Amino acid sequence: MFRERLALDAALIQDQFDLVLGALDDIGVTRAMAYATQGGKRLRGFLVLESARLHGVEADRAIWPATAIEALHAYSLVHDDLPCMDDDDLRRGRPTVHVTWDEGTAVLAGDALQTLAFELCSRPEAGPAEVRADLALTLAQAGGAQGMVLGQALDIAAETAAAPLSLDQITRLQAGKTGALIEWSACAGARLAQADPERLRQYARALGLAFQIADDILDVEGDMEKAGKRLQKDAVAGKATFVSLLGLDAARARAAELVDAACAALDGYGARAETLKEAARFVIARDS
Amino acid sequence: MFRERLALDAALIQDQFDLVLGALDDIGVTRAMAYATQGGKRLRGFLVLESARLHGVEADRAIWPATAIEALHAYSLVHDDLPCMDDDDLRRGRPTVHVTWDEGTAVLAGDALQTLAFELCSRPEAGPAEVRADLALTLAQAGGAQGMVLGQALDIAAETAAAPLSLDQITRLQAGKTGALIEWSACAGARLAQADPERLRQYARALGLAFQIADDILDVEGDMEKAGKRLQKDAVAGKATFVSLLGLDAARARAAELVDAACAALDGYGARAETLKEAARFVIARDS
Repeated sequence: MFRERLALDAALIQDQFDLVLGALDDIGVTRAMAYATQGGKRLRGFLVLESARLHGVEADRAIWPATAIEALHAYSLVHDDLPCMDDDDLRRGRPTVHVTWDEGTAVLAGDALQTLAFELCSRPEAGPAEVRADLALTLAQAGGAQGMVLGQALDIAAETAAAPLSLDQITRLQAGKTGALIEWSACAGARLAQADPERLRQYARALGLAFQIADDILDVEGDMEKAGKRLQKDAVAGKATFVSLLGLDAARARAAELVDAACAALDGYGARAETLKEAARFVIARDS
Repeated sequence: MFRERLALDAALIQDQFDLVLGALDDIGVTRAMAYATQGGKRLRGFLVLESARLHGVEADRAIWPATAIEALHAYSLVHDDLPCMDDDDLRRGRPTVHVTWDEGTAVLAGDALQTLAFELCSRPEAGPAEVRADLALTLAQAGGAQGMVLGQALDIAAETAAAPLSLDQITRLQAGKTGALIEWSACAGARLAQADPERLRQYARALGLAFQIADDILDVEGDMEKAGKRLQKDAVAGKATFVSLLGLDAARARAAELVDAACAALDGYGARAETLKEAARFVIARDS
């Protein structure tokens, strides 16, 4: 049920990218933008579409912020993979953008994907102006120097820090680096409906932390073939992770507790929230 | 009169950056963001503030999109100066961001400055939701793969092209690379007032082209000390410019015609438009 829904939503988002990117000039940068948005689980876009369903918002409105958040996520991966950042050559099972094209194209394609994210959630089709202005403002807050970019900066700083990060520091880093966009995605459905996003926020905060712990476990235990990216980079770099700080068993237990907390936060929605609860369980069971 | 106004507006924008960036965590990336937004003429922010005055919009609303466009412009300079792009070590008379910090910090600081631009023009203080959603949408269109990034991509492609670009191709490149943001800036005042931006658009299109021709003349004839950046890069790279295609005298004449056209587009506004007309004359007389 959940996996079918995730795949259907991913296909909807791909169609939207085809439509939007197909309208651009066919040059290296726009081809690199299309390449960077292909593949992946599209969990963030799924959270937008599913939280919108929960609030009775039509999919032809929700598809705009769903595609927006996947564009923003794709930009962050393209820039994160650059030689001057994480220096990765493999992403979603394929060579990274700067390997396939070059660094200049990767910088520009990432830049344009970020711009596209703000264009998509500001499009009139997404709903009333109040909603669109709110989506753009909160997306900027989640993606900027108090959200995702702060997390990335703390991550880079950790690489040259004298001592490994503490659990509190890792938690703060994660809240920015992956948590902020996951929270925005889950809250988007309530925002589209001009409803209170508080329950979805509680869900997303627990989900985001569980997601990162699962990522750290995957980095240690995962299969590169399935993950589609290089693993064990953190251990090799001597970076603190939830696994290095808690140990594998305690990290697994903590992730499971967080999934329970994420599900409990949605109890007020009744049976309609089942797909989002399944998503939370999937997050710690995935192999990619 | 005009130069005083330009300096006053630049100071207002600096105060706003101090306020906004001062609220962020004090880390390398946020310091690099502040550094990148200092100095410069702030012509784009001036165009926002002055077109807003023309439409009777309060400065405490217009300051938000004015600061937004300077943040977007600063991001484009930081990324454009990277070794994998134009590889510049000097900007606004100081070492570029990747020289002062490192490439990773420059990528992230540029990324966060772009995000900040969308945050600032979506802030409730900028006006009604209709206005903010319109500002964000049009800024994304001007800054993205059909605007500024398209111009930058065409510029990069020109470096490895078999033949130098034609006048039509250079004009299209410029319309994206510098024209789109100048047009957005000049139209912002009308958008803030929910008025028709058509006259300001005509003004900005002529102004933007004059600005680029003047830049090409400056690249040949300018003084590096005053310009605050390296010059004669285009000639050394064998790139076509308005000067290489038209010759110096014809380029100067064309820029002067465009300034006349820019001024004529504002005649309907009467004497109130005098400062914007002076700005157009300044654009081809400047030495930096």
